[in-house]
Amino acid sequence: MTQIDRHTAGVYVIAATPFADDGALDLESIDSLVDSYIAAGCDGMTILGVMGEAMKLAADESRAVMRRFLARAPKGFETIVGVSAPGLDNLARLGQEAMEAGAAGVMIAPIPSLATEEQVLNYYAQACAMLGEDVPVCFQDYPQLTGVKVSADTILELTRRHPQIVMLKHEDCPGLNKLTRVREGSGTESTPRLSILCGNGGLHLCQELARGADGAMTGFAFPEMMVDVVRLHAEGKADAAEDLFDAWLPLVRHEVQPGLGLALRKETLRRRGAIKSAKVRAPGPKLTAADLAELDRLISRAEARVPAAGGRLAA
Amino acid sequence: MTQIDRHTAGVYVIAATPFADDGALDLESIDSLVDSYIAAGCDGMTILGVMGEAMKLAADESRAVMRRFLARAPKGFETIVGVSAPGLDNLARLGQEAMEAGAAGVMIAPIPSLATEEQVLNYYAQACAMLGEDVPVCFQDYPQLTGVKVSADTILELTRRHPQIVMLKHEDCPGLNKLTRVREGSGTESTPRLSILCGNGGLHLCQELARGADGAMTGFAFPEMMVDVVRLHAEGKADAAEDLFDAWLPLVRHEVQPGLGLALRKETLRRRGAIKSAKVRAPGPKLTAADLAELDRLISRAEARVPAAGGRLAA
Amino acid sequence: MTQIDRHTAGVYVIAATPFADDGALDLESIDSLVDSYIAAGCDGMTILGVMGEAMKLAADESRAVMRRFLARAPKGFETIVGVSAPGLDNLARLGQEAMEAGAAGVMIAPIPSLATEEQVLNYYAQACAMLGEDVPVCFQDYPQLTGVKVSADTILELTRRHPQIVMLKHEDCPGLNKLTRVREGSGTESTPRLSILCGNGGLHLCQELARGADGAMTGFAFPEMMVDVVRLHAEGKADAAEDLFDAWLPLVRHEVQPGLGLALRKETLRRRGAIKSAKVRAPGPKLTAADLAELDRLISRAEARVPAAGGRLAA
Amino acid sequence: MTQIDRHTAGVYVIAATPFADDGALDLESIDSLVDSYIAAGCDGMTILGVMGEAMKLAADESRAVMRRFLARAPKGFETIVGVSAPGLDNLARLGQEAMEAGAAGVMIAPIPSLATEEQVLNYYAQACAMLGEDVPVCFQDYPQLTGVKVSADTILELTRRHPQIVMLKHEDCPGLNKLTRVREGSGTESTPRLSILCGNGGLHLCQELARGADGAMTGFAFPEMMVDVVRLHAEGKADAAEDLFDAWLPLVRHEVQPGLGLALRKETLRRRGAIKSAKVRAPGPKLTAADLAELDRLISRAEARVPAAGGRLAA
Repeated sequence: MTQIDRHTAGVYVIAATPFADDGALDLESIDSLVDSYIAAGCDGMTILGVMGEAMKLAADESRAVMRRFLARAPKGFETIVGVSAPGLDNLARLGQEAMEAGAAGVMIAPIPSLATEEQVLNYYAQACAMLGEDVPVCFQDYPQLTGVKVSADTILELTRRHPQIVMLKHEDCPGLNKLTRVREGSGTESTPRLSILCGNGGLHLCQELARGADGAMTGFAFPEMMVDVVRLHAEGKADAAEDLFDAWLPLVRHEVQPGLGLALRKETLRRRGAIKSAKVRAPGPKLTAADLAELDRLISRAEARVPAAGGRLAA
Repeated sequence: MTQIDRHTAGVYVIAATPFADDGALDLESIDSLVDSYIAAGCDGMTILGVMGEAMKLAADESRAVMRRFLARAPKGFETIVGVSAPGLDNLARLGQEAMEAGAAGVMIAPIPSLATEEQVLNYYAQACAMLGEDVPVCFQDYPQLTGVKVSADTILELTRRHPQIVMLKHEDCPGLNKLTRVREGSGTESTPRLSILCGNGGLHLCQELARGADGAMTGFAFPEMMVDVVRLHAEGKADAAEDLFDAWLPLVRHEVQPGLGLALRKETLRRRGAIKSAKVRAPGPKLTAADLAELDRLISRAEARVPAAGGRLAA
Repeated sequence: MTQIDRHTAGVYVIAATPFADDGALDLESIDSLVDSYIAAGCDGMTILGVMGEAMKLAADESRAVMRRFLARAPKGFETIVGVSAPGLDNLARLGQEAMEAGAAGVMIAPIPSLATEEQVLNYYAQACAMLGEDVPVCFQDYPQLTGVKVSADTILELTRRHPQIVMLKHEDCPGLNKLTRVREGSGTESTPRLSILCGNGGLHLCQELARGADGAMTGFAFPEMMVDVVRLHAEGKADAAEDLFDAWLPLVRHEVQPGLGLALRKETLRRRGAIKSAKVRAPGPKLTAADLAELDRLISRAEARVPAAGGRLAA
Repeated sequence: MTQIDRHTAGVYVIAATPFADDGALDLESIDSLVDSYIAAGCDGMTILGVMGEAMKLAADESRAVMRRFLARAPKGFETIVGVSAPGLDNLARLGQEAMEAGAAGVMIAPIPSLATEEQVLNYYAQACAMLGEDVPVCFQDYPQLTGVKVSADTILELTRRHPQIVMLKHEDCPGLNKLTRVREGSGTESTPRLSILCGNGGLHLCQELARGADGAMTGFAFPEMMVDVVRLHAEGKADAAEDLFDAWLPLVRHEVQPGLGLALRKETLRRRGAIKSAKVRAPGPKLTAADLAELDRLISRAEARVPAAGGRLAA
């Protein structure tokens, strides 16, 4: 079983959790969804995150979802499991189950009640101790959601204190200078390297790659774009990468709308055949006729532009 | 099985969830805790609330805690179950389990993402529909925690729309004038009566009773005080009620400290023999030597004052 | 003096306030800035908003800035003055001064402490009464900044209650369906029409126009783009409008970064010769070498693309 | 002119700003208010804070208020001026004016946009530099209002870096252990002593004194209580101090209600003859008949109890 490490790079797509129209789990669609991620060229995926509606699953559903995703993922395709939880007992329990089932690592965001950076450091010390030092951890830095602001220095300090914290999911905004500080401050004599994958819907992906990010970890519904952009960038073709990115940017920007974005993504994945229903569990947004027409238009406009930019279209 | 209704009154104590020092569930202490609440004269209790660390329980623990509390509660001692959850499927499932196991009703706070009062109305419409109209609901109005501000008018509108919403847990602050508006606006020709029980640690209990509240729903660790205050008030002895309340107020005020308050309460319950350990699950505060000395002092000072005020002491 | 009304349409650019490198007011640059807005084809401008660093001006500076902007604006070029303030006395005083000096209207955002929609309604009732009914008001709906969430129904109710509230600055996000509801609910038998101009950096401008917005009110540093997009859209050329918009979208998206965006805009305005210094008053962000290189790249890429999309470039 | 320093102790009452019933400044009431504070035995006062409605004053009103307070304060009665402002230019300007007019120091709270403790350190470095190193600064730690959480370590670091930061206004909650950490960490070999005065309406005053606070800085409308409590505590009579405090606690607790508290305080000051009108500028709460009756009752109950507790009553 491979695990994430300090040099992990590429595209780890954030996976949706498929439901049937009546809200029941749709485990079969997990298979087709994983297949679509692999066909797109992703290096791995992250499951049970916010986009995966993890908080809306019953405990046994959560377990079933995790096992189905891990069972479908082929050898070498790494799966990170989101284990953020209000209590550390639940966090550790889910983390250990995930690793036993074959996960490549776990992702943890700070809980909203952490008030100071000292408390953030203490929280991760507890979490790492309870998980055990063999479990690789991705630190999710997403203050827009958690309300917890963490400085680059604190991220570097976490890296020094806990060899198992090997990855940063970068989603602070504005965050480009913070990314630069983490990149320059890690992989030095004093501080181990940190793999940096970027979230936030990919909205600033090309700038992030230019500043040293190792790839993307987000749920954009055409992940082949992210795969191609990251690859082109790694090949030194920054302009080509950004041309392709810009062709999709209108849709990227559209998906980034908080709350609504998830419904738009699931509808897009449904249209692409990756899942059977676009259902979002309650409480959640429902798309209006105007929303659907807008999405049609944005997808068609992108598809008309992408070939010229050298990109792949949906089959 | 009795259920809460629009005329429910008295003291419904918010129950702690007992853990052993190592963090494991301590189901036996649930029995002694319930017994202590009954000995104090409480009319009922509310379990699996925030103070009950519900979010830190695994799903099977949650179920075990609920069943143990309900099994120990004698006939006529009503138990309300907190079922607030990020997803409505989980909320409805827990609510139905609770009612089948003998609960008197469920308590629901709005989820933090509800942005407008229209969204609050829609959320409760969905929740009520999914629970079924036979399940009595207590609306928890606690904006300090949820971030969701709800006007008196919206609370009255909920009361009109959903016959099953029979109770308000009032914890907004400042909230005395809001309580007055709900009291005066319900039990009218247009709007059914709403039972109003007050939370917030009981900090303003006498003022709330004077404005028409039906009782208290909070976790103060000497619930006999609340029972006596509510009873004296109902007997028309407002001054005696407030004298007794004021004798305890230094401790009430001390317990109201966010976060720390739970640790102080559990330590007090432990000293009183209601539970075996004061353990709060991680992440949570730990009491320092100075915290413990302060608590000693506040409890002794109260105990020196309470008999003169006509109140009961711990056995 | 023309004033904004229920049919106002077009581009009302949000104006920066120019400072010298040492932080002193640069009144001369106000002249060149206004000239650049007029050259771009804007229909008006909004001054003393958040982007105008209004809160960082001394009272006499605020007055001097207002008078200079209004003095430079030619006949027919309408100026809206941001008058949001923690106290209504200051709000009304500034509003009256603005109208006397020739403003076309004032813009008011709800103060952060307004907890319920009823309180929002009361606040605007007080504000309108203190301003006087002759002062046209633009309601700024910007919950990301104010924390105050207002439903479409409340916006329509404000429109019915106060004939002087003639315009909505729409910046909620996600907000497209809210815009649709305000558009469809105003200009009806029961509710007067509301002019809707869109902010949020213009990030969703084409979708907003398609849903019935009357134009843009935001500070994108190439306002000619917004002018052309709004004009093309009005001419029924939605595809051409969106092609042009998309050519600039990478820069629009880059400017939308909270906090940093203002520094990027002022630097862009400086490069374009509209103001002499990119200085942002403390506390405020400073651009790093990497920030400047990124901006270079994004502007050059846009300039290479825009002519093909039928757009204008900086002279 | 005396100034605050690292050993300042006692009661620095937070002063209200008096208005006439029509909302105009009432400068004469400033004189009677200052006289009442002196009669109560206060050691100093803090003006233009949140409770002073500073944000609702026009710039010239602000200046007039400051000059009137300073002119009335006798020699040795120290006045701290709140200078928190969104922009550092305004902050420094007001600070310098205050010192020139005879203030004993200035009080600064972090602005809400400071996201990390590193940014807090940078902000105070800028503020101190712009004020000049001769201006004594009180750091106001009030996260409930500012949203900025600052650890004890960061407060100590500020103390080391800036000799002019001599005082902490402690209002975090729960904050008793933080107070202990600041007390124990300052006045050491590495870190200069910090004067600690406590706010938050005085709700935890006796516990704070026991943990090493030097006094109180808050606006409780019977400041003689705070004066006596602090004095008794300094004389080693902790029990007598707390008995007196507890006699007033029901009113202290009542005044702590956010927002409403200011209206209650001004009404109390009016009844005591310290100011002529209880007017709070808009937007602000208005007391209902029920509010007034409640206040009557709480004041009479305290007055009946205080003599037995050895305290002073209003003349």
